[in-house]
Amino acid sequence: MDEKSLIHIIKSTLKSSYIGDDCAYLQDLGIVITQDSLVEDVHFKRDLITPYQLGYKTVMVNISDVCASGAKPMYLTISLSLSNCLNESFVKHFYEGAKTAAQDVKIVGGDLTGSDKIYISATAIGTDKGRKISSRSNAKPGYKIIVSGEHGSSAYGLKLLLDKSNLCRKEGINNEFIKAHLMPAAQREFSQQIAENASEDYAMMDTSDGLADALMQIAQASDVTISIDTSKIPHNPLICMDTVLYGGEDYQLVAAVPEHLLKKLDNYMIIGHVKEGQSGIEFDNIFYSDIDSKLYNHFKE
Amino acid sequence: MDEKSLIHIIKSTLKSSYIGDDCAYLQDLGIVITQDSLVEDVHFKRDLITPYQLGYKTVMVNISDVCASGAKPMYLTISLSLSNCLNESFVKHFYEGAKTAAQDVKIVGGDLTGSDKIYISATAIGTDKGRKISSRSNAKPGYKIIVSGEHGSSAYGLKLLLDKSNLCRKEGINNEFIKAHLMPAAQREFSQQIAENASEDYAMMDTSDGLADALMQIAQASDVTISIDTSKIPHNPLICMDTVLYGGEDYQLVAAVPEHLLKKLDNYMIIGHVKEGQSGIEFDNIFYSDIDSKLYNHFKE
Repeated sequence: MDEKSLIHIIKSTLKSSYIGDDCAYLQDLGIVITQDSLVEDVHFKRDLITPYQLGYKTVMVNISDVCASGAKPMYLTISLSLSNCLNESFVKHFYEGAKTAAQDVKIVGGDLTGSDKIYISATAIGTDKGRKISSRSNAKPGYKIIVSGEHGSSAYGLKLLLDKSNLCRKEGINNEFIKAHLMPAAQREFSQQIAENASEDYAMMDTSDGLADALMQIAQASDVTISIDTSKIPHNPLICMDTVLYGGEDYQLVAAVPEHLLKKLDNYMIIGHVKEGQSGIEFDNIFYSDIDSKLYNHFKE
Repeated sequence: MDEKSLIHIIKSTLKSSYIGDDCAYLQDLGIVITQDSLVEDVHFKRDLITPYQLGYKTVMVNISDVCASGAKPMYLTISLSLSNCLNESFVKHFYEGAKTAAQDVKIVGGDLTGSDKIYISATAIGTDKGRKISSRSNAKPGYKIIVSGEHGSSAYGLKLLLDKSNLCRKEGINNEFIKAHLMPAAQREFSQQIAENASEDYAMMDTSDGLADALMQIAQASDVTISIDTSKIPHNPLICMDTVLYGGEDYQLVAAVPEHLLKKLDNYMIIGHVKEGQSGIEFDNIFYSDIDSKLYNHFKE
């Protein structure tokens, strides 16, 4: 049974209107909340990432979800489950990495338990004060599709790490692709500029599960066609278009915004537009109603 | 290395003033937040709890932490990691149990990932609206120590479950002790009455790690002596005092409150009082400055 079918069961059991976006928007409290987990051998391998990098990435992954909502990231809690063979040094370096990534976001709690493998679950809270919150169902015909930066680098970095499992991690971090995979950066400024300046609804997601997946989620939730010119998607020329579109974990943002908002933004790349039509994506005028078979699946590729 | 030493490392790495209570109180947002995890074979064994009970307990454990703060429980997110052999039926029953326990608290998000064993991490949010928030450092000489209900039942129920591992779980639930262990109830009303009526600071904790541990945490954080008359602690007469004091997971509340607040409360039992002196607990006039060696440790007993 795949994840999407199980999530459908959860939604129908809970009859919840909240589950759907990267964050749940709790309007009565003026906050958004997101919780994301990293599991050893599913999301990372212990010999390919240092404890510092793991703490760093845990925080960025969750801050990225808050940024996708447009809210200002404020607080984090982290639950860490560790086997007994991991010690003081692991915990210290993990939290040093977490603190560095958090910047002004405060880590305020969580818990620490035993387990066989490393299991990390973090929750991030953001405030809607002075910001308009996104929803993936807000894309409208005529809106432009913009991205915050290059795609494919993280998946390419993971490939390098897996191809060279004897690669020293300290050397690896000097490689820009491996760094993109191990220590991604949440796109706080891109998010802030859009959310503070938006007067109309807009759609935004992070590209943690791949750019194509994010575009498809927006297209389906908004019931529109998203038309993409793949030649406009920023990426390193070493990386093939399949990895640019379907490789995950870049933690860039993709947004569908009204054109007049663009003059208030500093750094963005237009890669397409929204139009009326069947829900799905056109890549260079070829229509896709679904992309499930190509989805990024970490180590199961 | 024990959990308390590791938490000390986390606190010193983060230099966070928030970590300490069951919940972190985020005053600028008017909310409290708590995150707690349940790990297979550390906190539960799959053959001793049904998926429904596990969902139920996950929610109650986190709501209990919010109740300990005095805040009103509002929202939950749940991250669930499951091995591939667990299916649709597990997820459905887990969330049915979660929903039943949540009552009017809304489950608004989380994620679902793969793993070898079952890992569950939930986050609960409460609001401070109309309520005074507790801190374990708020106990003052002269305050009364009150509890919301019986102690020792959950640990006794776990003992029954472990002694009779062939006990049918459906039969087991008719046993009040096993029910106390598998499906504890968060003490929402006790919390609400105190938090809505308190005009002065008060200390409150849940007794998830045992009544003695909660009392010691309050005594140490408040730098006071807590004097307990063990004959006043409500418990089933089948259960020995060691289990009443040190058995965990009852999810009752224990509070240190000014005496004049008592007339506004309906259901409580006075078990002792706070006095000046060395930080620690007197059980029937015998002083303990520490109880670490007796702490409840799930399956490691």
